[in-house]
Amino acid sequence: MGIGDDASVVQASGVSVTSVDAMVEGTHFRLGPHFSEPAEVGHRALAGALSDLAAMGARPGEAYFVLGLPHGFSEQRALELMRAAGDLAAETGTVIAGGDVVVAPVLMVSVTAVGSAPDAGALVARAGTRVGDLVGVTGTLGAAAAALAQMEGRAPRTPAGAPALQRAAFPRPRLREGRALAEQGAHAMIDLSDGVATDAARLGERSGVELVLRLEELPLAEGVPEVADALGLPPWGLAAGGGEDYELCFTADPCDRERLERAIAAEGSVGLTWIGTVREGPPGAVLLDGEGREVELEGYEHRW
Amino acid sequence: MGIGDDASVVQASGVSVTSVDAMVEGTHFRLGPHFSEPAEVGHRALAGALSDLAAMGARPGEAYFVLGLPHGFSEQRALELMRAAGDLAAETGTVIAGGDVVVAPVLMVSVTAVGSAPDAGALVARAGTRVGDLVGVTGTLGAAAAALAQMEGRAPRTPAGAPALQRAAFPRPRLREGRALAEQGAHAMIDLSDGVATDAARLGERSGVELVLRLEELPLAEGVPEVADALGLPPWGLAAGGGEDYELCFTADPCDRERLERAIAAEGSVGLTWIGTVREGPPGAVLLDGEGREVELEGYEHRW
Repeated sequence: MGIGDDASVVQASGVSVTSVDAMVEGTHFRLGPHFSEPAEVGHRALAGALSDLAAMGARPGEAYFVLGLPHGFSEQRALELMRAAGDLAAETGTVIAGGDVVVAPVLMVSVTAVGSAPDAGALVARAGTRVGDLVGVTGTLGAAAAALAQMEGRAPRTPAGAPALQRAAFPRPRLREGRALAEQGAHAMIDLSDGVATDAARLGERSGVELVLRLEELPLAEGVPEVADALGLPPWGLAAGGGEDYELCFTADPCDRERLERAIAAEGSVGLTWIGTVREGPPGAVLLDGEGREVELEGYEHRW
Repeated sequence: MGIGDDASVVQASGVSVTSVDAMVEGTHFRLGPHFSEPAEVGHRALAGALSDLAAMGARPGEAYFVLGLPHGFSEQRALELMRAAGDLAAETGTVIAGGDVVVAPVLMVSVTAVGSAPDAGALVARAGTRVGDLVGVTGTLGAAAAALAQMEGRAPRTPAGAPALQRAAFPRPRLREGRALAEQGAHAMIDLSDGVATDAARLGERSGVELVLRLEELPLAEGVPEVADALGLPPWGLAAGGGEDYELCFTADPCDRERLERAIAAEGSVGLTWIGTVREGPPGAVLLDGEGREVELEGYEHRW
């Protein structure tokens, strides 16, 4: 039983993993020729919810969409939105199994993503980091903040910055990488929705340890150094504070380093980078520059 | 693992039943001293999602809330909203297991309710009605439409109409009744969110049969005849066309009549009423008045 009945019915097994993510026009995105198209909104709403499943190492199952549509938002645009979500669903093995459509003053999309794992022990939480662990991230960072700076006109649109715009419009949740990291023994994991500085601090807080991140080691997405330069920021400025990159940040025993590198390499070209270590200290994260000096992130925060 | 991690983790078994329901200020409710308080909004949002589970005969499990809060909506009011939802969750055995809070131009609440059943065969769908079946409803109808007429000033607020206001503010999802009806062999079931005329027609459409409803048999909630009279409507006018009553409409074999009556009586004081029969005909529903004449519902539709 599925769309059209009162509720959807799915065969359950193991543990069920559920995440909810909402995007509201004016808060999380702006519509328009210089901003986002409906397709990007649909893709990003699903990507955000699936990214939470990725961060637990869960396998995606079903997604449920609530669309709040303003008067004048055409059926065609609503279909463009859902078609893009459907493409990402197909790409990730997710079934869009139901939802609700309501009238709202602005466009809003709320997605509930349900995944699974054989048992709770197969999942990775935010707690679990140990002193001596390494800190790693998948992929590259800063594209979302670089795109936002260009869309808002704070940085000029140049050919160098174009890849960041494309990447930010259609972020990929790191589902396969998340499962690989979970299977290979990552201790703790989180997806980067608020920026690596903020999200790494959450791992530290939940685990009662201090993560030390080396800003010069942050892997930068294409175009990010150029946009950071145009904004008068150091190269890592957008990568450390910018949210919505949807890469995974995790901690692991140094002995598992090569095993994790091989596991991520086996999943494709996303790659992983070691960006720090874990020590005893105030629960949270600190950022060090190239000379080992502690850096405050004030002024580097850029969000969608 | 629960609130505070990237996703919630729940032990799964049997089949999982999921429903999504969204309410937006200005579309589904209005805030204010003559309209709704935050507590009612929180209660009704959860009640709407749980009512879909009730209509399948599912057992409630977890609920996930997305709150869109406008600027100026105080933390205290948000807590009132969630406290009322928490009360209904406790009353129904539902665990509020996660969610998301975002800034929105108006108050919006989106609820994903997840329930379960031992297997798909234990559930009741909208299809399954057979020619010769009886049509029943739980409880009483029309309170929500009578409340709306009073809140909007179309009908005067009188002592007679007060019970409808109270009932409509805090509707109860018929979860135990839904499971009892499913266990005792109801053929098809739906919850009354758009009015019995509209929702019964959906059972007919999905089952390829015609439901014949006798308007004079509709069980009226306290105060509904008085408010209908003030509006110049026949007594059944608000009950047939008014949505959001969240009672259950179902079909069953006449031989199971007494068994179903006993099962509902065993669950408490809600009661059930037989309001029609099922025949071959154009898939949908027709409404008959006391003389057996067909009645069109145009002009009787009242929604929140």
